[in-house]
Amino acid sequence: MIINDLDQLFEITQEKLEEQYGTITINFANKTHVYTGNDVIGNCLQEWLPDWFSHLGVDVRPGDNTQSFPDFVAVFNNISHDVEVKAWNYNNSPAFDIANFSSFLATTYESPGKLNARYFILGYQPMNDGFSQGFLVKKVYLKFIWEITSPSRNYPIGLQVKRGQPYAMRPYNFKNNEDRSFRNKRQFIYAVKDAFEEFPNDSLPFTADEWLNRVLSY
Amino acid sequence: MIINDLDQLFEITQEKLEEQYGTITINFANKTHVYTGNDVIGNCLQEWLPDWFSHLGVDVRPGDNTQSFPDFVAVFNNISHDVEVKAWNYNNSPAFDIANFSSFLATTYESPGKLNARYFILGYQPMNDGFSQGFLVKKVYLKFIWEITSPSRNYPIGLQVKRGQPYAMRPYNFKNNEDRSFRNKRQFIYAVKDAFEEFPNDSLPFTADEWLNRVLSY
Repeated sequence: MIINDLDQLFEITQEKLEEQYGTITINFANKTHVYTGNDVIGNCLQEWLPDWFSHLGVDVRPGDNTQSFPDFVAVFNNISHDVEVKAWNYNNSPAFDIANFSSFLATTYESPGKLNARYFILGYQPMNDGFSQGFLVKKVYLKFIWEITSPSRNYPIGLQVKRGQPYAMRPYNFKNNEDRSFRNKRQFIYAVKDAFEEFPNDSLPFTADEWLNRVLSY
Repeated sequence: MIINDLDQLFEITQEKLEEQYGTITINFANKTHVYTGNDVIGNCLQEWLPDWFSHLGVDVRPGDNTQSFPDFVAVFNNISHDVEVKAWNYNNSPAFDIANFSSFLATTYESPGKLNARYFILGYQPMNDGFSQGFLVKKVYLKFIWEITSPSRNYPIGLQVKRGQPYAMRPYNFKNNEDRSFRNKRQFIYAVKDAFEEFPNDSLPFTADEWLNRVLSY
């Protein structure tokens, strides 16, 4: 079967991976141990997923090496799509870092097209009941960034703020309220601009208005 | 072969594990991926090691469930020994967290014997050269806490300090200067007491002097 776009890839992935079990094993000095903790599952799944896409026949290439964003690029009919992969413990609210806020501003100013990146998101449940050890993938999502973000209690977007400085952009709880996100890309962009104005950043070579004009005109 | 104490366990472990290779694999939806990153190796090795000790015939039991310290207890001839397991990327200086400073004070005030815990420490090197993926364990150490700590530039012991508050206790670079640690347990205890005085902590139900008297009299 030929997969022609990310939405088709998502449908197949969702159908085949939801409710599937997995394990992580460490083999060292010819002794195998099945990992029983929770800490490394997301990290391992994020590495596993591009292999899965390749297995499905999708042309998957590493992302731009000089940037951590995007994780990789999927090519369909000669058109490249930026893809990010996230995973989190589905027993909790989604709390993964979407991106460092100032890196996000710099990257999207440089390449406004990256605002259209798609997020493959896996919600896994650790399984460690004494009988089986591993994890279950409960949910697979494919989202735009404005579909996993919303205004937070204190800021125009979800932001981790330390000592008055914004660090990571964080998703809202889309697990429980999938319809409370920003309505569209434009609304998201204006919220980012408002957050940028609230936290001016002299180390960036552009203003909030310049960022806004650049990404809107793309 | 019967192993009678931790030092014998260490000798065999060092002999058998140094320069050995290992891999971490994730199996999900019947597809196997060999992990190529660096982030999860230490975490996985820390889980693997107690299995290894069991395999060698050592009576290994989980640590006190209400505390994160120690990781586990090894029993030889009916005598229990607290064992901590640490691992770090040997290409860097050791920078793992030994313990949260105030938790350490509370735990050792409650159970001064835990100051005699032994630290099994693995220095691993990620291997990802295009031909092989995995890691190599370069060095195995067995240390007391005073053998991996020393006064730091700014404080009586190695401390991660954020906003004027101490967080994690950190080792000094014992990889490069194995003889620059505290000379003995007593010297370590006095340095901890000095650090406690430098960072008074009202949430602890004892003073620096009370802590000192308690752990010295044990």
